[in-house]
Amino acid sequence: MDQATCAFMQAAIDEARKGLEEGGIPIGSVLVHDGKIIGRGHNRRVQQGSAILHGEMDALENAGRQPARVYQEATLYTTLSPCAMCSGAILLYGIKQVVIGEHDTFMGEEQLLSGRGVKLEVRHDQTCKTLMREFIARKPELWDEDIGR
Amino acid sequence: MDQATCAFMQAAIDEARKGLEEGGIPIGSVLVHDGKIIGRGHNRRVQQGSAILHGEMDALENAGRQPARVYQEATLYTTLSPCAMCSGAILLYGIKQVVIGEHDTFMGEEQLLSGRGVKLEVRHDQTCKTLMREFIARKPELWDEDIGR
Repeated sequence: MDQATCAFMQAAIDEARKGLEEGGIPIGSVLVHDGKIIGRGHNRRVQQGSAILHGEMDALENAGRQPARVYQEATLYTTLSPCAMCSGAILLYGIKQVVIGEHDTFMGEEQLLSGRGVKLEVRHDQTCKTLMREFIARKPELWDEDIGR
Repeated sequence: MDQATCAFMQAAIDEARKGLEEGGIPIGSVLVHDGKIIGRGHNRRVQQGSAILHGEMDALENAGRQPARVYQEATLYTTLSPCAMCSGAILLYGIKQVVIGEHDTFMGEEQLLSGRGVKLEVRHDQTCKTLMREFIARKPELWDEDIGR
């Protein structure tokens, strides 16, 4: 991972930690275009009673309305493998590259994304894994709710 | 379509019209559980500058945090065939039935949904078609933006 990629994954991890500090689910994401973060987000199920603001969705929302070209040229960095909803958003907007912190604690729709031509890079990041493992052990019901179980 | 189904599709159409009156994209949805509407929504791209509040997403958000069982027993009524993002949300939460107003002006991820066992009913509703046709003819750029083109 080059230095810029490291910095963007770190920004996603910072978002995840922010969520944790707020009492929420520690998953964070950033949307990067042209070498700059244009949207940051973290899961807000607890904080806003939201059923749709996963980290990736929150980053997309905070990036605001963007022309199609921007999404198509963007890379999404996310601490955890994207669920069906977030993967669907990636497909809707034609985001072509996704860098994933880890997929051991939860395997999202990576097969669907790859099959549609999205380039995935899984980082197997230890910090991302630890954040999720500790959270799931502490609040299994909340985690199940978030992924529709 | 039985009388209850008619009423729920009408409620989704009412949401679409509300969106249109607000200057927005005329797509509406309702989430129904146990014979009652538990969430209503319409597309809010224009009204809230939102990249993620499609009609279906807005209905899910307005239904609030629900236990997994409720989604699995629920039916989503939506005026237009659900895009990749909204289809992903349907899969995430295990919603098993979706009633669709029409899929002529836009064909969403119906094949993906059917393939995962979601029961779809397409109503070929003339009001839904007219709402979308008139809107797309008037604001093609806005429509393209909404579906990531």
